Amino acid sequence: MTPAEAHNSTLREAHPAAWACLSALGRQIYYPRGVAAQSSEARGSRINATIGQLTDGRGDAVPLPALADHLAGIPARQTLLYAPQGGMGTLRDAWQARIESSAGPKVSRPLVCAGLTNGLSTVADLFLSPDHDVLLPDPSWGNYRHLFVTRTGATLVPYRMLSSSGVDVQALADAIAARKRPTLLVLNFPSNPSGYQPTPDEVAAIVAAVGASPVPITVLCDDAYLGMVWEEGCYEGSLFNALLDLPADRVLPIKVDGATKELFFFGGRVGFITFGATGRAAAALEEKALAVMRATLSSCPALSQSIVLSALENPALGVQRGNLLALLERRYRALRRALDDTDFQAWPYNAAFFTLIQAPRDPEQMRRDLLADGVGVIAVPEVNALRLSYASVHEDDMVELVDALRRHS
Amino acid sequence: MTPAEAHNSTLREAHPAAWACLSALGRQIYYPRGVAAQSSEARGSRINATIGQLTDGRGDAVPLPALADHLAGIPARQTLLYAPQGGMGTLRDAWQARIESSAGPKVSRPLVCAGLTNGLSTVADLFLSPDHDVLLPDPSWGNYRHLFVTRTGATLVPYRMLSSSGVDVQALADAIAARKRPTLLVLNFPSNPSGYQPTPDEVAAIVAAVGASPVPITVLCDDAYLGMVWEEGCYEGSLFNALLDLPADRVLPIKVDGATKELFFFGGRVGFITFGATGRAAAALEEKALAVMRATLSSCPALSQSIVLSALENPALGVQRGNLLALLERRYRALRRALDDTDFQAWPYNAAFFTLIQAPRDPEQMRRDLLADGVGVIAVPEVNALRLSYASVHEDDMVELVDALRRHS
Repeated sequence: MTPAEAHNSTLREAHPAAWACLSALGRQIYYPRGVAAQSSEARGSRINATIGQLTDGRGDAVPLPALADHLAGIPARQTLLYAPQGGMGTLRDAWQARIESSAGPKVSRPLVCAGLTNGLSTVADLFLSPDHDVLLPDPSWGNYRHLFVTRTGATLVPYRMLSSSGVDVQALADAIAARKRPTLLVLNFPSNPSGYQPTPDEVAAIVAAVGASPVPITVLCDDAYLGMVWEEGCYEGSLFNALLDLPADRVLPIKVDGATKELFFFGGRVGFITFGATGRAAAALEEKALAVMRATLSSCPALSQSIVLSALENPALGVQRGNLLALLERRYRALRRALDDTDFQAWPYNAAFFTLIQAPRDPEQMRRDLLADGVGVIAVPEVNALRLSYASVHEDDMVELVDALRRHS
Repeated sequence: MTPAEAHNSTLREAHPAAWACLSALGRQIYYPRGVAAQSSEARGSRINATIGQLTDGRGDAVPLPALADHLAGIPARQTLLYAPQGGMGTLRDAWQARIESSAGPKVSRPLVCAGLTNGLSTVADLFLSPDHDVLLPDPSWGNYRHLFVTRTGATLVPYRMLSSSGVDVQALADAIAARKRPTLLVLNFPSNPSGYQPTPDEVAAIVAAVGASPVPITVLCDDAYLGMVWEEGCYEGSLFNALLDLPADRVLPIKVDGATKELFFFGGRVGFITFGATGRAAAALEEKALAVMRATLSSCPALSQSIVLSALENPALGVQRGNLLALLERRYRALRRALDDTDFQAWPYNAAFFTLIQAPRDPEQMRRDLLADGVGVIAVPEVNALRLSYASVHEDDMVELVDALRRHS
């Protein structure tokens, strides 16, 4: 039995939904018994001639001072040498504890990926082929199209995400109910570009719609903006948690999250992939994801991982993070106040970094005119809208931002 | 005309070989006019509400001290905020100057990728479909198979890389001459796993074989170990340079290199993709590569890029790098001396970090026995060999390493 066959056979028994949803590549790929696997076995050997990196022969880095002088308080071996495939074990454990504090024990050990896009892309490689459907929210982050459709050849099925009052649960339920072949559903809450986090009732309805899927379904939760919620009455935490009780013969939940927004470490590129699976099924899925990442970027940045781990272990992190969340919330309220005084129609918003407003005229032209006036916004022509990111605008500038929008309407 | 068609039409005229060699994905993909493109236009706006990252509203980062305290001497905006898609402009320029110092002006502006594997993978996405052949050296780095074959569906055509005296130029020429459809040829010198850099005569023969290709051909130079050459009489620099005069209607040279080995920054994940093309053709190829990377990892680590740039600008870098190269060369000589006293048969080696020796018995079993004795080596069963990385072994331990090999023969 080849390594790929062994894992496929495991999944067929232990997680039928995952097995049914795997892409052609997902079925073929296995983690090779090559340099990375053999090096991993040789960690700690007296003489370690396995790996193509310069060490002092005792496991420590031989750093160029020109690099190492920038990295304070972390040993060079944890920043300049390769991190293990799949990520630093201590960081994976710390992130798993973070997830399990709200999700409970039904999750796999998170794999480190190089930022959230890389996590989404790895999941797309594993679960999308030309014989699959991918259900994407409309509107959604523009990068989703190439990520989930162009690169994989899967068929795009957009679902209307928001009505004027909240999640358009019926549109989502109808889209799921119409499926005839293995499907990947992407959920993104708090959502980009609309900045919406659903209510508990809406989440219950989404979970019911997923549970009623007529085909095996993988549900990918893009949790980039997890925890960035500015109003009372919203569902608390990740929708991933709410999907974990659905049966493994029908549904595989997957969570992609990371330090990019949660720790405001945009430049670090530290994300995580976590499966709603345990035991043998989790091991097989982890190995397949690891194999895809080995062949697309090998290891992830060691220094970013070390810095994230250090921050997670820092007792001051909670207070520091709270300060930045409070800053974001003040900006959210300032923008809302400024918009409430206008006739602009906004999609429902209460979370993340964004407000999506209906453009009173051609959004691309309006964007260009605003740009000429020193004001940058994003045109979302698919839904005739403009996306405003209040996360990158000073609280004192919100009125001026909205005045500019009005002036160029 | 769609954006993809515009670039395809450019390539058809300005670089027929590149056009003929593009994969199905490579033909379809274009850089989307979405958030990243629009944010890039809005850099420097008075009010910038484009991008989903937290800033102070004036373009600077609002750092968590728990992260920023580790990064000395570089402003937080250059480490904690997103780097531009395709990489920091100043870093791209610095790397281009580095390449042009030996290659001359016939190259594109290097794109930053997340380490060399990610560069190779991006090139594979652009130039390999199930209707392509990929010529891989045998033996080669084990990761090549998934990277170039499993992920793309291209047909693997191995070519014997080394004879007992050096490059098996005839094997390579025969493999190229037999091609009937668009082909990607991977060259890896100094090579992993054999540690060989060819002579100028061998390079001339390789270039002639490529020039005689009966089909349009993309030649990907995996330059991971560039400049790590320990003997006189070897070709100086990258084979990419020697390919740049071949005609654009037949050959597209591509170079993937990076700071991983050249600056001993293994954990940083900073690589570069450079095309042997200029003008409109280069612009079209860059945009397609950028589009693939946008959909697989979005931006690359900002802090790693900033640290690499700082090192390149550091006047002490040359001396510091020279010290590490001298250390590597001493290890190479120590291992060569120790092996010369034995009956082990080694492939020709003079460069990079490695020696490949014929295993006197089953290499995997021998590897396991050595491991149990505290000595880590890599088994390469495809050619019944063991790979020794002297880069990670102390000079004083080389005799002990070879003694252990002998003891377990």
